Amino acid sequence: MQEMTKVALDAMGGDNAPVEIVKGAVNAVNARNDIKVFLVGQETLVQAELAKYSYNAEQIEVVHAPEVIEMAEPPVIAIRRKKQSSMVVAMNMVKQGEADAFISAGSSGAILVGGQLIVGRIKGIRRPPLAPLIPTETGVSLLIDCGANVDAKSDHLVQFAQMGSIYMENVLGIKNPRVAIVNIGAEEEKGNALVKETIPKLHACEGINFTGCIEAREIPKGGADVIVCEAFVGNVILKLYEGLSSTLIHVIKGGLMSTLVSKIGAALALPALKKTLKSFDGTQYGGAPLLGLNGLVVKTHGNSKCTEITNAIFQCITFKEQDINGKIKEHIIVENADSEEE
Amino acid sequence: MQEMTKVALDAMGGDNAPVEIVKGAVNAVNARNDIKVFLVGQETLVQAELAKYSYNAEQIEVVHAPEVIEMAEPPVIAIRRKKQSSMVVAMNMVKQGEADAFISAGSSGAILVGGQLIVGRIKGIRRPPLAPLIPTETGVSLLIDCGANVDAKSDHLVQFAQMGSIYMENVLGIKNPRVAIVNIGAEEEKGNALVKETIPKLHACEGINFTGCIEAREIPKGGADVIVCEAFVGNVILKLYEGLSSTLIHVIKGGLMSTLVSKIGAALALPALKKTLKSFDGTQYGGAPLLGLNGLVVKTHGNSKCTEITNAIFQCITFKEQDINGKIKEHIIVENADSEEE
Repeated sequence: MQEMTKVALDAMGGDNAPVEIVKGAVNAVNARNDIKVFLVGQETLVQAELAKYSYNAEQIEVVHAPEVIEMAEPPVIAIRRKKQSSMVVAMNMVKQGEADAFISAGSSGAILVGGQLIVGRIKGIRRPPLAPLIPTETGVSLLIDCGANVDAKSDHLVQFAQMGSIYMENVLGIKNPRVAIVNIGAEEEKGNALVKETIPKLHACEGINFTGCIEAREIPKGGADVIVCEAFVGNVILKLYEGLSSTLIHVIKGGLMSTLVSKIGAALALPALKKTLKSFDGTQYGGAPLLGLNGLVVKTHGNSKCTEITNAIFQCITFKEQDINGKIKEHIIVENADSEEE
Repeated sequence: MQEMTKVALDAMGGDNAPVEIVKGAVNAVNARNDIKVFLVGQETLVQAELAKYSYNAEQIEVVHAPEVIEMAEPPVIAIRRKKQSSMVVAMNMVKQGEADAFISAGSSGAILVGGQLIVGRIKGIRRPPLAPLIPTETGVSLLIDCGANVDAKSDHLVQFAQMGSIYMENVLGIKNPRVAIVNIGAEEEKGNALVKETIPKLHACEGINFTGCIEAREIPKGGADVIVCEAFVGNVILKLYEGLSSTLIHVIKGGLMSTLVSKIGAALALPALKKTLKSFDGTQYGGAPLLGLNGLVVKTHGNSKCTEITNAIFQCITFKEQDINGKIKEHIIVENADSEEE
């Protein structure tokens, strides 16, 4: 019998829970028989959704969790107090080895906190980075870190570069991925104190293909496969990507509707235009892994639809098959393991 | 007789010097008679360009400067050694009061260094920020700081907020401009150490309309008039804006050309589309002022054409008429004037 990838899925997380989450799980198990999904959440609600579909009953199991962590709750308090929430119950399943991975479209803060407090870090990993894939002109790049690790240190960034490199090579299949650090110029003498301290460490780091600095303007062009930065900068890049894409598309649509002739033109051009914009649509890339934990934790967009959930589940299979955590344990610099932080 | 605004223009700076720079100066003086432009650069070259146009000879004067600071030169060394460069000669004219303002499309680094070393800071201003206007869905916002002030402190950011506010109110005519600080969440308890330290100081700062934190995704929507951040983050925002806009436009054009039907549609829609994209085109907003100096220093894009130069010259008139530096001197917190930095 083939090995199953077991995914604990937060049925209550995100704007479209439980409807789209349940649908995403059903679509995943109907497409592949090497997955088992635990739908963790309020049993009555989840079962009512499940009743709409036909699927192999052995591949989906509902795990009851009466509480829900809301988006606005302070993460640390929510994770500590709501022991019966879908998030805490599901992450405990990963901790106990009952599931290989946890996926949630819920509160980012709670996922980041729960990942560290419940699932726990791999020994030697100092900070687990959140690493979404962002679309570029030539494909996708991994932006690492976009999480909650504010005021990171250079040693953290070196670990991000290593983990990101392993992920892109083994999950995305990009051989010898180009690793670059975000800087305010292409020249290595530029930058803030953190970047200047990190650059020589990245040059000295074996097993990664460090190509130097990348300016933000080169990111959308696909200038590197692994884009290393501390979380504040990563967050700004990720959110500006989102905001600017939607604003430009909005502005362009408005422009196309401004005259009768351009309206006709727009009608003719729209199918091709939509197909193109689809390539810049984050939803098709599944979720963002929180790397360096004892198990996989994946954060998907708060507004995830079923397709994003299904893709995130498939991503977990590759992550397990490629033994990403085994490779992280083998390759990451853990010289400073004794200086681990809480 | 009306008062003239005197502008020292670097005729040798940027990709299109001296052709577009000279043309920009001629267009400016032909449009308004309250400007005098000093074209600073290699006299023979500049005169040869000028000979192509007709204009009021009293409004343009060529000032010979045999040396040129190249884009790749280390800024501090270039400014210190090339005393006869167009940049150093022109900035000295501002220092001596022979010109009100200096404009250059040349090396940003050299402009920033020269601004501080030659023109000099207003007493009490700790770091002069570079503050470009960026396009938004509803107009423009001032992004402050995008300069070379790495590892800024909270007191610097408060001064940026004040100077940016004065600029937007008096040069752009936006009453009571909304000031926001870039953060990784809308909530004030989020952020890195610098942002957390700055927020209460901005709340306490009189004379500005501080509206709280802004996430990067709200910037293109026009979520604030003055966007405060330290220079590394500002640089990332500015360059990602540039890169993502050009990539998306490129990708969209490619998509429109993909089928015959969409090609016809594109041909019909193109005039409206171009007009729309023009509203997201940085060139129409003139240059970025380097605020807080004893005189105005304006940096325009390296690839500036004549229109951008002309607009930058007009911007200097408003800056002088509105006595921006007088207002900065009057309003800026200078409590820590004794702790000024070099």
